[in-house]
Amino acid sequence: MQAEILRPPILCIGGLDPSGGAGLQADIEAVAGCGGHALPIASCLTVQNSAQAISVSAVEAKLIQQQASALLDDMHIASCKIGVVPNKAVALAIAEILAQLPSVPVVFDPVLSASHGSEFCNADTIKAIKEILLPIVTVVTPNLSELMTLTDNNSNVSSQAKSLCELGPKYVFATGADSDNDNVYNTLLTRQGVKHEYQWPRLPHSYHGSGCTLSSSLACYLAFDLDVAEAIKKAQQFTWQSLQNAQQIGSGQWIPKRINDAKN
Amino acid sequence: MQAEILRPPILCIGGLDPSGGAGLQADIEAVAGCGGHALPIASCLTVQNSAQAISVSAVEAKLIQQQASALLDDMHIASCKIGVVPNKAVALAIAEILAQLPSVPVVFDPVLSASHGSEFCNADTIKAIKEILLPIVTVVTPNLSELMTLTDNNSNVSSQAKSLCELGPKYVFATGADSDNDNVYNTLLTRQGVKHEYQWPRLPHSYHGSGCTLSSSLACYLAFDLDVAEAIKKAQQFTWQSLQNAQQIGSGQWIPKRINDAKN
Repeated sequence: MQAEILRPPILCIGGLDPSGGAGLQADIEAVAGCGGHALPIASCLTVQNSAQAISVSAVEAKLIQQQASALLDDMHIASCKIGVVPNKAVALAIAEILAQLPSVPVVFDPVLSASHGSEFCNADTIKAIKEILLPIVTVVTPNLSELMTLTDNNSNVSSQAKSLCELGPKYVFATGADSDNDNVYNTLLTRQGVKHEYQWPRLPHSYHGSGCTLSSSLACYLAFDLDVAEAIKKAQQFTWQSLQNAQQIGSGQWIPKRINDAKN
Repeated sequence: MQAEILRPPILCIGGLDPSGGAGLQADIEAVAGCGGHALPIASCLTVQNSAQAISVSAVEAKLIQQQASALLDDMHIASCKIGVVPNKAVALAIAEILAQLPSVPVVFDPVLSASHGSEFCNADTIKAIKEILLPIVTVVTPNLSELMTLTDNNSNVSSQAKSLCELGPKYVFATGADSDNDNVYNTLLTRQGVKHEYQWPRLPHSYHGSGCTLSSSLACYLAFDLDVAEAIKKAQQFTWQSLQNAQQIGSGQWIPKRINDAKN
């Protein structure tokens, strides 16, 4: 009998979304769907459904640190996925946690607002993200709107991704689902300026949690020691498949199907 | 092409466990593994790992109600799973939510302490659970220790299950993993006194989140309109399989594997 590979534990810090489309549930499902095991810490509790985001309540930074400490005492974290950072105190807590995991890859999805509206971050938080978190993450995965906000650069994606790379992350993977193009163009840029472009047929609906699915499947593939370019390729495939099988469970955005149930 | 069945949305109210073994992650994974879609609302945030439970922070009852309201405005909830109830205010909030879902099956797993120690509920909360929640749930799934605490009855399982049924739930499903028997004996009792017994070979390890896995897979099968006896049979099979494939990811209890990843 072939020995089963141990599911790598992946620390996921992000918002809890009760609609189950985005946030920690997206992380948990995407990580499990890719063969890992999520370790979920809520950075904030949100009131939202598939049609609208209503409010965000930050979790106390100290509680986030206590939860991470208990996990670090118990397990060898294989990679990290960071989602919504609701305030500067939480950004500092996350930086302290990551400082204890110096050789672990970190994917940061800088969710500044919900895809169906409502801001998650004010200007102070965005400043903290730029100064505290961007310098210490491995890959940052902004969409076009987040790329513009984080760089204050109004030109093309390549120039914006270059500006963002200069703030510290080793890789910028800019996703283009939030454009008006017929296709979705995604762009990977490294600090060395190496660039890959990916083109995907645009799917017909609006999806809740597509960015979360992409970044947490990426964190999981990195936990399996794939190099970043290969992990990004596989994460895009996993995400596209999850969106293609999405269903409209509520009245608003469609919800990705990230895992195969027992009947399949 | 055969039309895909819509994943039924299942409201899950329980504790968030950052080890990912129990609580909302167990709910999310078990529900997805059985073909449903979880809607996770945190009743409390816990500090714990696979070896010990350290602390429990209740979420404000008002925030729980706001989250549920947003979901009820958006979706047709197919069933509910209730886990840790950290205080009376949360018990009351849950009762108000369930009052808006009169024909929806509710599975209540009365988690009074973590399986690796630490109490989740004080005497006041246990009183609130007995008076407010037990009368309005469809199936309650205590283990032997919870059965004793909830009934103050020191005799055999059948007699205790009967006492618990008299507090209101339509069905009591008492699980016996926390005994010293070579096999695990589970017992189903209805208000009409109909009784089924199930016997499972005891698996070799201690597992983190087995009760959560059982009760949330049960909620999912009920959402597919199975009758309670059939749903209980399938939920036990699903749980046994998840435990058989469990892995020791941290230093303590083994963590169930509730879903098949893309590689399988």
